[in-house]
Formats: sequence, C-alpha cells, structure tokens
Amino acid sequence: MPIEKKATLLIKNIGQLITMAGDVPRIGRSMSDLGLIENGGIAVAGDEILAVGVSDEVQGHAPLAEGCSVIDAKGMVVTPGFIDPHTHPVFSMTREKEFEMRVQGKSYMEIAQSGGGIRASVRDLRTTSTEILMERTKDRLDRFLAHGVTTIEAKSGYGLSTESELKQLRIIDDLNQLHAIDMVPTFLGAHEVPDEYRDDREEYIDLLINEMIPAVVRDNLAEFSDIFCEEDVYDIDESRRIQQAARSAGLDLKFHADELKSTGGAELAASLNARSADHLVYVSERGIKALAASKTAAVLLPGTTFSLGGKQYAPARKMIEEGVIVALSTDCNPGSSYSESLPVIISLAALQMKMIAAEAISAVTVNAAYAVGREKKIGQLTQNYQADITIWNMSDYRELPYHYGVNLAARVIKKGKVVVDR
Amino acid sequence: MPIEKKATLLIKNIGQLITMAGDVPRIGRSMSDLGLIENGGIAVAGDEILAVGVSDEVQGHAPLAEGCSVIDAKGMVVTPGFIDPHTHPVFSMTREKEFEMRVQGKSYMEIAQSGGGIRASVRDLRTTSTEILMERTKDRLDRFLAHGVTTIEAKSGYGLSTESELKQLRIIDDLNQLHAIDMVPTFLGAHEVPDEYRDDREEYIDLLINEMIPAVVRDNLAEFSDIFCEEDVYDIDESRRIQQAARSAGLDLKFHADELKSTGGAELAASLNARSADHLVYVSERGIKALAASKTAAVLLPGTTFSLGGKQYAPARKMIEEGVIVALSTDCNPGSSYSESLPVIISLAALQMKMIAAEAISAVTVNAAYAVGREKKIGQLTQNYQADITIWNMSDYRELPYHYGVNLAARVIKKGKVVVDR
Repeated sequence: MPIEKKATLLIKNIGQLITMAGDVPRIGRSMSDLGLIENGGIAVAGDEILAVGVSDEVQGHAPLAEGCSVIDAKGMVVTPGFIDPHTHPVFSMTREKEFEMRVQGKSYMEIAQSGGGIRASVRDLRTTSTEILMERTKDRLDRFLAHGVTTIEAKSGYGLSTESELKQLRIIDDLNQLHAIDMVPTFLGAHEVPDEYRDDREEYIDLLINEMIPAVVRDNLAEFSDIFCEEDVYDIDESRRIQQAARSAGLDLKFHADELKSTGGAELAASLNARSADHLVYVSERGIKALAASKTAAVLLPGTTFSLGGKQYAPARKMIEEGVIVALSTDCNPGSSYSESLPVIISLAALQMKMIAAEAISAVTVNAAYAVGREKKIGQLTQNYQADITIWNMSDYRELPYHYGVNLAARVIKKGKVVVDR
Repeated sequence: MPIEKKATLLIKNIGQLITMAGDVPRIGRSMSDLGLIENGGIAVAGDEILAVGVSDEVQGHAPLAEGCSVIDAKGMVVTPGFIDPHTHPVFSMTREKEFEMRVQGKSYMEIAQSGGGIRASVRDLRTTSTEILMERTKDRLDRFLAHGVTTIEAKSGYGLSTESELKQLRIIDDLNQLHAIDMVPTFLGAHEVPDEYRDDREEYIDLLINEMIPAVVRDNLAEFSDIFCEEDVYDIDESRRIQQAARSAGLDLKFHADELKSTGGAELAASLNARSADHLVYVSERGIKALAASKTAAVLLPGTTFSLGGKQYAPARKMIEEGVIVALSTDCNPGSSYSESLPVIISLAALQMKMIAAEAISAVTVNAAYAVGREKKIGQLTQNYQADITIWNMSDYRELPYHYGVNLAARVIKKGKVVVDR
C-alpha cells in the first residue's frame, strides 16, 4: 500500500473492523458481507481514510504526522458512521399527546379533530421563529450524532408554502454549515395538500411545479424531490407529474410509497428511476419485482410501524431475496416515529423484519449511502473515503440489535475529528 | 411546612414535578395520578428530601446550607429515580449469537444444542473470575443509572450450586457498597435444575431447601427468594415446597409465573402472599382475580416478549382494570432481554400493552418500590423519602414513551448527590 500522506489519526486494536468494502450497493447475500477485519486498524489523514487493515500493519506502514492522535479501540467494534436516509428533523412542537391518544385507542379522526396530525406540524412550522426551529433541530442532530450517525437525509414538508418550505430548507442549509453532522436536503413540498388548497388541489400542484420547485432549484436548497404518493394524498398520476417536473428541474427523486395501501408507488418510483422508494409496508409482488429490476433503493422504516402501534412491517426478507437494494432509516418525525436512534431501528429490523445484524449494518452504511447518492464518498471505510467512523462499546457487532434500547456508541469521528466521546 | 434541617441541594424551575405522592401502591385509576406540581421545586438535605412544592415556595422556605448546590431544571420534567424490580445483572458472556439464531428462525432445541440457553450462562458464571464478573456487572449498573434508574432488584440464578450462587450474591453485595445504585438482592437458586441433577431433581430441591437457602440467610445475602415456576422447570407443588422453606427461613417471596404457559403460578404467588409475581404473559382469569384480591404485585416485562420476537404480551390493561398492583421491569439478562433501559420498556408498555405514560411511570416508581419492599423509602418525592431523583430533558412527561429508543435522562441524583450529568 503506497502511502504518501501522513496520518493525523490512528485507531488501533479494533476487535472487529467492519469496513463494508465490496459491492455498492449490496443486494441479496452480499448484504451479509461486512468486509470484516479482525484486530484491525485505521489511519486517517485529515478528513479522509488513508489506510485500513490489520492493526499492526497499518501502524507499521502509515507515517504519523506530528501530533497524530492515537485511539486504542481495546477490542471494540468499529463501523463506518451510520447514515440515516429518511428524516424530517426540522420541527418545534412535539406530538406526545397524539401518541397517548393512539395508545388509548382514539381514532385518526378523533386525533385530527383534536388538532393533531401533520397539519398541526404545518401550523407550528409556519408560526415558529427560525431561531427556535434551529435550536430544536440542533438538539436532534446532536442526538443523531451521539447514536453513531454521521450523515442524515433531511426533508422539508411542514411548510407547504413557497415561503415556509424555503424557510425549512434554509434551516437545513444553515445547520449543515454549523453542525458536524452532514445533511442531504430533500424538498418535500408534496407532503400533503395544505388546508388553504383543500378545495383546489390542482392549484397547489401548479404552485409546486411552477413556483416551489424552481425556487428550490434556483437557491440550490435540495438534491432530492420527495412526494407522499398515496391514494388520499397524491395519487399515481399526480405523483408522476410532479416528480417529472422535479426531475426536469434537476432534482433526483424519492418517494413515500405504498405506506398505507398498495397503490403502485414502488412501480412508479422504479419506472422513473428514482433513487429510493421509502416505507413500502404494503408493496405488492409486482412492486418488489419492479424495484429488484431497477436501481431504486427500498428505504424501510420499521420504527414507524412500531411507533404507530401497528402490526404490519415491510416485507424485508422477501425484498432481500428478490435482490432489492434495502436500506433502513428512523423516519425521525414528530408524528409517526420520534427517534434519532438507528441502533433501535436495527433491533426492530431484526425482531420484526428478520434482518440479521450484518444485513442491517449494510442497510445503514453502504446501502444508505447509495439511497442518498453519496456512495462514492461515505458508507465504507476504504482508502480515500470520508473519515466518518463510529467506535462501538461491544466486542461482537451482533450486540447491536441484541442489546436493545441502549446507546453503545463510544466514540464518533466525523471527517477525521472526534465529535462524540462518551 | 416546618423545616429544621438546611438544604444541601435545591432543584428549581421544574416544569413538571412528578412527586408520586399519594396511594402506595397505586391500583386502577390511581395509577394515573402523578402528584404533579407545575413549576415545582425540591429541597434536599443530605440524602433525604426536605421539601417539595411550588418552586418559589420551596426556595422561600428552605434555609440553605453553606455551599448548597442549586440546579435550574429550566422547565424540564423531574421524577423519582426509577426502580427496576426484576433484573439478572451478574453475568459475563453475552448471548448475541443466540439472538441472531432466533432471528434466523432457529428453534429452541437448535439453540440449546449449539450451546445456548440458560445452561450456557451457568457454565460461564461458574468458570468466570469474580473480578471479571464485577467489572461487567459494574458497566451494566452504570448504564442503568445513566437511564435514570437509581435502584434495581438483582437476582442470582446462574450459579445453581451453593458455591456459585453465593459467589453471585456476594458480587451483588460488594457492588452494592461500591456503586451509587442500590441493589435489592434476590436468591434464585431455583432458576433451573442444573445439568448435574437432571436425573435426580429431588436431590437438587433438597440442596436448595437444606443447604442453599440456609447459607444465603446465614450470610444475609438476599431479601427475596425467587423461583422459575413453570411446567418444565419447577411445577406448582415443587414451587410451593421450596418457597415455603424460603419463607420459613426469613425470605420474602417472588415468582417467575405463567411466563410460557398458564400453570397457576399467579394463584400460588397470591396464596403464599408473595411480594410479586413476575412475567404473567399467560396469566389466567383466575390468576388475575387472585392477584387483585391479594397484596402481591404483578411485575410485567414487555421487553422479554419483544426481544424474543414474540407476539403475546401480558394483559396489562385487564390487570389494571381488575385492580392488580402493576409494576414494570427490563428483566435485564443475557438470554431473553438485554437492556438496561426502563425508558424503552415504557415505550413497549405503551405500544404493546396500551399503558399510558402516567400508568407506566407509576409502574417504575411507587409500584416498583412496593415490588421490592422499599415503598416507605423510595419511589416518591416526599419529605423524608430518599433523595433519588431523575431530571429528564423534556417538558412533558408523555415524551417518555413517545420519544423511543433514546435516553433523555439529563441528570440523575442518588441519595442527594448528582451521579449522572449528561
């Protein structure tokens, strides 16, 4: 291994170094391939990985820069920093009362009538100051980072007006500069039809296509356009129309698809060559085939079923068997899934969707990187990749799903710098 | 409020001060009564609560000792330190491989044949040094404390010989002196029948009654005797015999009851006036009636069903409606439930057993204190109670189940001293 640069950070004595080197994205059996090195070491130069291998060799070969930090991992597990490919992190008001109403068996209608639901979050976002929104969102980013997550996708979608959607995306943009975590911004103006357009949805679609998408692209505020494609929100034809406009304007595509019913959202996402189709609780056989034949990733959100008290989880095993690119996410949002912990999602993926630990790790590293279009830069620990690294307080990576509800991230390194040390 | 002592710690500006003052234990509707004070304050003198009330009044009345610490809770939620009434914390070897085998659909038999199950933990406990066991257990106690838990019940049961059971109980005793957390020790020599007595279980029962229980009592190493009362482990008659001997020797009683099948364990526990019957996934109607008519608490362990990938949870709502004293616990152990987080258990209690936040908080404070026989000292924030206090980073206590898989304990105070500050 020819090394020119000098190491600014050296991690040695890694019990299980999970590099994830290999196929990108991972499908089928290759999801179980962790590129695992026992007694491993990593040398970092600045914000990039310089060398990865057996601890002694990496130490022997990498010339150390003056003041190089050395971390003794003491036999622990090291993975790429986790990537959460589907979050709605910008909000102020939490909705715990609604959660409790659901526990008490109240219906969706009763909750909506008591002022709950996504419209409550829209009212809140529109009327809350940027300063408070920044503060609350920053706390969430801190919690993501503390759980070993170094990159998240972050959606708008609580504004539903040009002004408020841009406000939300600018908060994401500003925090991206201020915070260690990286955010991949997604425009989700088609999260719902706002109250003021209930009687004229066509006018809102017109606004999305002719005003909001162009404004988002002009200000370079998003990489993806997402849509809630569902019978009662945006149907297949509307979704196609809006997303084609977004694609023409230069945005890559994501879909909330087949979450509540099987409506052909997965098929539409695949046919438009979207980067990902998300949720997929009720994806059809045909939808799975379409995804398997495409380059569209399936982002599964078991925390949402769990937190809504549901029984039906996305058919992860079937998708993996059919060769779909599977990623996992928290869906962090104030309504249906409030958590910043990918480790707890990994436990849910194991217990409710029968994904083994290695598959789940693939799903929050290489495949999640692919789902946000960053697979050439993050999601694995290989030379020249970004030095986003999590050290876990465990000696076997299978402890991740097993030791549930507890945060075992010991140290988190972002772009070569230790940003969490617990 | 006549105050003689001076405050050594003052907590002010508590958004929701959950005192739990009132009925002990809580049953039925009283489980929803949190004794909540808005904008509350607490004065602590040494290791005891001195005064509780509205922030300004507590500040106005309590004379401050020199060097008194003042904590501004900034509108957060404060509860009594949580109490976990059922744990198996003393072990070295984790069993994540077994967990993964279950995810892959392997049967109990296959897992046992591959060297898994409780017998694996017995082999491990017997052959591992006290030093290593102390170290591993201490890490677990740290994690309990970090999740706002200030007292746990702690069982033996991986020794299954006089020597190894005493070894485990002495570790609990030693750590009780060394660690901030309090442990209530329970003898569980009847956790299984050890391999060497498989062909003569009567001889092991004789050992339990005539050697082990007397030794435990002589060395004052346990307050409770517990037993795995289940068709294939210790049946109803054996359980009665062993527990009557334990009671005669001076121990209070607990039962692992009706976990895998309905065998009348709850009825037996109630008839023997046990302090608690635990698990109760398959408790019968008659068992619920028996518990409701008794002073025996039901300790429910939803994490165990969850972590085993099961569907059937204990009928918590029915028990609450019938007037059973309900408590909640992690069941922290290496086989069926590896977690030190009562907050995640509260999420599971809400989502899987339909317990609202207030009921769940009752179940890990006053009722858990009752389940471990400490209800006159801990489990509420009232004058003269022990100053075990958790400050939660939330403004509404209902965030506890809702914001799942994330640890929101901001500060933990044990016997008047800050032991966790995150």
